[in-house]
Amino acid sequence: DFINALEEVHPAFGVSEEELQQVIQNGIIYYNDNVKELLRTGQLFVEQVRTSKRTPLVSILLHGPSGSGKTALGATIAQESQFPFIKLISPDSMVGFNENQKVAAISKVFADSYKSPESVIVVDNVERLLDWAPLGSRFSNAVLQALLVLFARRPPKGHRLLVIATTSLRPVLTEVGLSEAFDSELRVAPISNLESLEYVLHSVELFETDEQRRRAMHMLAEAGFASGEDESMNGLHIGIKKLLSIIEMARQEPDHATERLVGSLMGLGM
Amino acid sequence: DFINALEEVHPAFGVSEEELQQVIQNGIIYYNDNVKELLRTGQLFVEQVRTSKRTPLVSILLHGPSGSGKTALGATIAQESQFPFIKLISPDSMVGFNENQKVAAISKVFADSYKSPESVIVVDNVERLLDWAPLGSRFSNAVLQALLVLFARRPPKGHRLLVIATTSLRPVLTEVGLSEAFDSELRVAPISNLESLEYVLHSVELFETDEQRRRAMHMLAEAGFASGEDESMNGLHIGIKKLLSIIEMARQEPDHATERLVGSLMGLGM
Amino acid sequence: DFINALEEVHPAFGVSEEELQQVIQNGIIYYNDNVKELLRTGQLFVEQVRTSKRTPLVSILLHGPSGSGKTALGATIAQESQFPFIKLISPDSMVGFNENQKVAAISKVFADSYKSPESVIVVDNVERLLDWAPLGSRFSNAVLQALLVLFARRPPKGHRLLVIATTSLRPVLTEVGLSEAFDSELRVAPISNLESLEYVLHSVELFETDEQRRRAMHMLAEAGFASGEDESMNGLHIGIKKLLSIIEMARQEPDHATERLVGSLMGLGM
Amino acid sequence: DFINALEEVHPAFGVSEEELQQVIQNGIIYYNDNVKELLRTGQLFVEQVRTSKRTPLVSILLHGPSGSGKTALGATIAQESQFPFIKLISPDSMVGFNENQKVAAISKVFADSYKSPESVIVVDNVERLLDWAPLGSRFSNAVLQALLVLFARRPPKGHRLLVIATTSLRPVLTEVGLSEAFDSELRVAPISNLESLEYVLHSVELFETDEQRRRAMHMLAEAGFASGEDESMNGLHIGIKKLLSIIEMARQEPDHATERLVGSLMGLGM
Amino acid sequence: DFINALEEVHPAFGVSEEELQQVIQNGIIYYNDNVKELLRTGQLFVEQVRTSKRTPLVSILLHGPSGSGKTALGATIAQESQFPFIKLISPDSMVGFNENQKVAAISKVFADSYKSPESVIVVDNVERLLDWAPLGSRFSNAVLQALLVLFARRPPKGHRLLVIATTSLRPVLTEVGLSEAFDSELRVAPISNLESLEYVLHSVELFETDEQRRRAMHMLAEAGFASGEDESMNGLHIGIKKLLSIIEMARQEPDHATERLVGSLMGLGM
Amino acid sequence: DFINALEEVHPAFGVSEEELQQVIQNGIIYYNDNVKELLRTGQLFVEQVRTSKRTPLVSILLHGPSGSGKTALGATIAQESQFPFIKLISPDSMVGFNENQKVAAISKVFADSYKSPESVIVVDNVERLLDWAPLGSRFSNAVLQALLVLFARRPPKGHRLLVIATTSLRPVLTEVGLSEAFDSELRVAPISNLESLEYVLHSVELFETDEQRRRAMHMLAEAGFASGEDESMNGLHIGIKKLLSIIEMARQEPDHATERLVGSLMGLGM
Ligand SMILES: Nc1ncnc2c1ncn2[C@@H]1O[C@H](COP(=O)(O)OP(=O)(O)OP(=O)(O)O)[C@@H](O)[C@H]1O
Ligand SMILES: Nc1ncnc2c1ncn2[C@@H]1O[C@H](COP(=O)(O)OP(=O)(O)OP(=O)(O)O)[C@@H](O)[C@H]1O
Ligand SMILES: Nc1ncnc2c1ncn2[C@@H]1O[C@H](COP(=O)(O)OP(=O)(O)OP(=O)(O)O)[C@@H](O)[C@H]1O
Ligand SMILES: Nc1ncnc2c1ncn2[C@@H]1O[C@H](COP(=O)(O)OP(=O)(O)OP(=O)(O)O)[C@@H](O)[C@H]1O
Ligand SMILES: Nc1ncnc2c1ncn2[C@@H]1O[C@H](COP(=O)(O)OP(=O)(O)OP(=O)(O)O)[C@@H](O)[C@H]1O
Ligand SMILES: Nc1ncnc2c1ncn2[C@@H]1O[C@H](COP(=O)(O)OP(=O)(O)OP(=O)(O)O)[C@@H](O)[C@H]1O
Ligand SMILES: [Mg+2]
Ligand SMILES: [Mg+2]
Ligand SMILES: [Mg+2]
Ligand SMILES: [Mg+2]
Ligand SMILES: [Mg+2]
Ligand SMILES: [Mg+2]
Repeated sequence: DFINALEEVHPAFGVSEEELQQVIQNGIIYYNDNVKELLRTGQLFVEQVRTSKRTPLVSILLHGPSGSGKTALGATIAQESQFPFIKLISPDSMVGFNENQKVAAISKVFADSYKSPESVIVVDNVERLLDWAPLGSRFSNAVLQALLVLFARRPPKGHRLLVIATTSLRPVLTEVGLSEAFDSELRVAPISNLESLEYVLHSVELFETDEQRRRAMHMLAEAGFASGEDESMNGLHIGIKKLLSIIEMARQEPDHATERLVGSLMGLGM
Repeated sequence: DFINALEEVHPAFGVSEEELQQVIQNGIIYYNDNVKELLRTGQLFVEQVRTSKRTPLVSILLHGPSGSGKTALGATIAQESQFPFIKLISPDSMVGFNENQKVAAISKVFADSYKSPESVIVVDNVERLLDWAPLGSRFSNAVLQALLVLFARRPPKGHRLLVIATTSLRPVLTEVGLSEAFDSELRVAPISNLESLEYVLHSVELFETDEQRRRAMHMLAEAGFASGEDESMNGLHIGIKKLLSIIEMARQEPDHATERLVGSLMGLGM
Repeated sequence: DFINALEEVHPAFGVSEEELQQVIQNGIIYYNDNVKELLRTGQLFVEQVRTSKRTPLVSILLHGPSGSGKTALGATIAQESQFPFIKLISPDSMVGFNENQKVAAISKVFADSYKSPESVIVVDNVERLLDWAPLGSRFSNAVLQALLVLFARRPPKGHRLLVIATTSLRPVLTEVGLSEAFDSELRVAPISNLESLEYVLHSVELFETDEQRRRAMHMLAEAGFASGEDESMNGLHIGIKKLLSIIEMARQEPDHATERLVGSLMGLGM
Repeated sequence: DFINALEEVHPAFGVSEEELQQVIQNGIIYYNDNVKELLRTGQLFVEQVRTSKRTPLVSILLHGPSGSGKTALGATIAQESQFPFIKLISPDSMVGFNENQKVAAISKVFADSYKSPESVIVVDNVERLLDWAPLGSRFSNAVLQALLVLFARRPPKGHRLLVIATTSLRPVLTEVGLSEAFDSELRVAPISNLESLEYVLHSVELFETDEQRRRAMHMLAEAGFASGEDESMNGLHIGIKKLLSIIEMARQEPDHATERLVGSLMGLGM
Repeated sequence: DFINALEEVHPAFGVSEEELQQVIQNGIIYYNDNVKELLRTGQLFVEQVRTSKRTPLVSILLHGPSGSGKTALGATIAQESQFPFIKLISPDSMVGFNENQKVAAISKVFADSYKSPESVIVVDNVERLLDWAPLGSRFSNAVLQALLVLFARRPPKGHRLLVIATTSLRPVLTEVGLSEAFDSELRVAPISNLESLEYVLHSVELFETDEQRRRAMHMLAEAGFASGEDESMNGLHIGIKKLLSIIEMARQEPDHATERLVGSLMGLGM
Repeated sequence: DFINALEEVHPAFGVSEEELQQVIQNGIIYYNDNVKELLRTGQLFVEQVRTSKRTPLVSILLHGPSGSGKTALGATIAQESQFPFIKLISPDSMVGFNENQKVAAISKVFADSYKSPESVIVVDNVERLLDWAPLGSRFSNAVLQALLVLFARRPPKGHRLLVIATTSLRPVLTEVGLSEAFDSELRVAPISNLESLEYVLHSVELFETDEQRRRAMHMLAEAGFASGEDESMNGLHIGIKKLLSIIEMARQEPDHATERLVGSLMGLGM
């Protein structure tokens, strides 16, 4: 009935294909080694799920600052697994759901996954699924309880499941007791040195000539941004998503692109 | 199907036309350079949405004290975009809605916008949409969660959206975690020097003669109000909306217009 | 369609006539100059609404201690406007309403008013409409949000509206953010000197002879109550409503009227 | 239609007759002058309602410690008014009502009273109607809001109403803002000296001979209880209801009645 | 109609018979004088209800630490009254009831009791009826309000009622204002000296020979447990219910009964 | 009707068989003496329930850190009892249940158990049944109240019940007052010395040769982990479940198994 299961899940798989494409629309830029390494670790977990008898369930958490690329990376790992069942659970498709509807929608995906021999579920933006509001520390306890159980519940015998959750509010997940539900946590770091920044600028071709790009880098160095690995000292701390957004704004005024870029980064990064 | 989309959205567009007119009924008075500059920045964002491939969604926040002209300016930017879909989401049309009805109404507008190739949505008075009450820090978490997702959710492939939100309680938006949803924030400042004030008085013709107006300005200067750019030192701090209201009251007693004007401003501004 | 509108609102007007009469049943006693002045200011606002193009909506707040005459004065201003639509929104007619029913009833009156070219709405006892309870600072946020919008929402083009709200808990209105919704606030002061008191005693003829009344005044002066304008020093601080009630109690024992009056006032006022 | 009204209210009146009898089943013992005086003051308020034109509504509050006789006294004043409509609103008949049902039941009685030319409503045990719980300061805001309005709402023209409320938690009523709704407050004091105590013992004939009673009084005096008016110094502080209960317990063991009486009082009173 | 009433209540009586038996299944062991005395006091209250005219309602509270025998003693007093209506209200039969269902069930029993000339109602484990949770001090206010009224509401004329409530959380009852509803409180003390303990051991025949029992007592004395009346100094503080449970555990290993007994008691009592 | 009862419960028993198997899928590894001892104590409680007349109900609590093996051990004790009714109550089968549905499901199992002469119920992961969230200390009071009663309610005459509950948050159970419901508590300790660790490594054959395993143990000793009984000093503190998970991850990279194992343990244990 392996064949059967495949057929059963394919339509669902088809739907997710589109959703996954949507979130990695802008592609992955390999702006530093961490990007590659994180994707490789992801692959290892995929292997563990595929082969180990004792751990048919593995749950991991991708966390990092807002816009650092968590969703795109999680979706990429999922897509590369080539498991017959791959699904994205995202708050985007649950606007206006009450907590019971959210729990039902989430449980449905897990229940569906149990029919496939191997599955990946990307649970995106957990704090939003929880309806988290920092003021008053409000959240949906119903959703929380469901996630606590679903992230730890073994699939039925002979079935295997990888859960990849993402959050930009890891401390909140710890406070509500959800961190303990994960077998492993992976940090998605923001861009924090000039080398990575230049790599991105080069990739998206903000500047027409290398000369222009180098001039911009010079200005940024003068403005106090630094090279090297020491994240806390470089003055730079920006997610790839926000960086791409700033670049697009700068692109609107080709003549002042460098100034706008430096200005926006300084407004944020220092 | 561009044509199709246009037809689909036109009726909605028609309705909003009237709503937009209503909120800029009293027109825009260019009482200082900031007014023009803010409108120009608005135009740049319109351009970015229209042209950039990587950022089909841009969300901006107009914030400033009560009555400073946020709604009128937001509506003006929207109207000048000439996008085929322009819509105002306002608490005025949601009196007595419970939070679910609010979420449904708001989501509906966003869903409609996804049918148009290019759209602007003005989300007016966000704190009121949130049912914000300072006493007890009460607010609708359901509306908050919906806005958090909607302000950040990319429209479907090939569609573009500019979101312009307004608030006079920016700190509240920060506290509930909504500030982070915006790509950019623009401040709408109150009137804070005598030059701007005189410009407005002139525009609305409170006084019949220049002589009278100059006498009033003199009295205001004597009362301690000042000229110049330093907002915190001029003693003046009044939104254009309130100023227009005070002027109309003063107009009721033509013989004492100057005295009432000065009196009202002093009651407020010092 | 002016004629039409008139016809439409008349029945409603008729009902309110009775309600307004009921709250000013005991008439207005002009016990000092403030009474007259307040009514005149009210008239000015009526004029502004009638004539100004830029401010078709004016909202004012009558506030003052319990029983100081707010409802009677608000109703009087409304009645003297002779606008075709005059309506009293009062908690008296909403006992047992839940918050949604309250919001519906209140919105209905505003919606009705938008059909008349000129309207006055007296929103009586706002704290009671809000279901305010000091212990635990409980209130109906649904009603609050409705009032915040309704007090600031312009009537449709060509229609004009004066809103007169009353409260004896102005600090509460400030705490919930409702104070900012008003264009102007008017204080209704309690009776706080012997001149006003004597004027009232004379008006309602508690004593059969002037001699008796003067004797009572003498006793009150000896008891420490004072004449003059300084409200905080006179030891007297009583609303006209409570004063009328005390007078009626004193009237039960004609032989001891003076003693009971002085006793009651001392029990309160010092 | 006076006749009509009378007929309308009679059945209701009949029902209340029984209820009123039930709460004054044990009669009124005139154990000191305050009892008589309180009943006389009650009569004066009845007169004011009957005769004054300006105050067709009078609301009073009987307050005092638990078991001090508030309900019995309130019912007695009501019954002696001989008004055509007399009704007792008591938590006893509302066990298991939710707050809406309570509000409906209470409003019903007030609405009925407006049909009679003259009415008395005894609102017994207000804290229980409010579902007051000291832990967490919980109460029914719906009931509170209803009472706040009903205690202050004038009956329709030509109708008159006396409201007599009772409570043993006056500070709570003040905290929730209900105290201000009353025109007057009357304190029902506990028994606090030996004279009153002896009067009661005599009335209910606990002892067969005067000799025995005197012996008991002697023992009580020795135990530290005192005579005289100074409530705070006498060591005695017991409601008539509790006292009657203690006496009945003592009556079970005729041979040790004195000892049990003294023992119980000392356990309480010191 | 005495006969009638008897017939009416008999079926209910039958049901309770079984329930009462269930809770005193293990019988009453007279391990010290307090046991007998408490039962005698209970009888006196039964007499008062049966005979006194002024107090047709008496409510008493049995309180004491967890497992001290409150339920068994309350049921015993009730059963010995031989009143025609005897009923046990217990949380055991209300698992999963919401607060309204609880209130309905409780009220039903009181309403039924009013049909019998004489009744006893045992209200067991009041804190559980209240859904009391110490964390957050949560409780059902609906149940609380119902109990507050029902414990104090006189049965209809000619009917008599004894209410016996039990709790192991008397401070909670005081905090929620329920303590005042009782005419009297009786403490059920735990076992706190070696004499009582030995009496129980003897009764339930844990040891086959007196020799063995005495050896155990000796070991307990050496372990620091003491004889005599001073509850706070004896180191022993255990409810009869828990003691019986420990004894049964010890009985599983006949060879080490003494050691297990001493071990368990030391784990608890010191 | 013993036969009857057996037949009634068998189907239920069948279902649980599978559930129990599922939770002890990986078997029990006897890595130290405590494991055996705990299972033996469990057997003693089974005996007590089977034989004692006075205690037909025994409730015990297995508590210990997350992943220490509580569920597997509880299920093992239950299965070895060979009672005709054995059932697992687990949050896994209640995802998305509201509190009433949870209470109903739980009560159903207890009600079913009362039909069997002897029963074991394993109530797994009590904190999850309670919907416990540490942030804001939220929990379902309805479930709590049900458990408080069910854990203490004696089965009907002639029936016997053993309740085995598990939790990794024992302090929470104490805070909500649930600890007192248990007759006994058993601690399931984590693995905390190198001997136990080596025993497990050996059992699951992570390393192909003894040589490799010994090298790993050596590295761990050098890393600071210690042998012996003193739990707090050994630096090691890991549940068997987590340990098995880490071992499976290490197994993915056979060449670096030792390094990954040591790395993971150091990341956790120190
Ligand atoms: N190395 C990279 N890693 C991740 N995303 C990348 C990378 N390079 C380019 N991108 C692009 O950057 C964007 C990252 O956005 P993404 O939504 O994944 O961030 P996020 O951390 O999930 O944001 P949020 O905190 O708002 O959920 C995507 O459009 C993705 O295509
Ligand atoms: N330069 C200007 N900018 C904005 N509004 C102007 C300007 N000149 C005149 N106006 C008029 O001033 C009024 C501004 O009111 P508007 O409702 O936009 O203020 P707001 O800041 O949205 O107020 P609120 O804080 O109450 O929402 C409008 O009637 C508008 O026509
Ligand atoms: N100068 C006056 N101003 C107001 N009311 C007056 C005056 N003279 C007499 N009255 C009478 O005094 C009473 C004032 O009562 P009113 O209900 O208006 O007071 P209020 O301030 O609204 O009381 P509350 O705080 O209870 O709402 C009315 O009966 C009114 O007829
Ligand atoms: N002088 C008296 N005043 C009041 N009640 C008296 C007096 N003499 C005897 N009684 C009797 O004492 C009892 C008083 O009880 P009542 O219920 O009125 O007290 P209460 O203050 O309302 O109690 P609670 O605080 O419980 O509501 C009644 O039975 C009444 O018949
Ligand atoms: N002298 C005694 N008093 C009370 N119970 C006794 C006595 N002797 C033996 N018992 C037995 O001890 C047990 C007491 O348990 P019971 O349920 O009455 O205690 P409890 O205080 O109500 O407990 P809980 O606090 O759990 O409600 C019963 O089984 C009863 O038969
Ligand atoms: N000695 C042992 N005791 C318990 N479990 C063991 C033992 N040896 C091996 N195991 C295995 O270890 C795992 C223990 O997991 P289990 O779910 O019982 O832990 P838990 O403490 O209930 O975890 P959680 O805190 O997540 O509920 C099971 O897979 C079990 O088969
Ligand atoms: Mg994301
Ligand atoms: Mg605005
Ligand atoms: Mg008023
Ligand atoms: Mg009473
Ligand atoms: Mg009990
Ligand atoms: Mg477990």
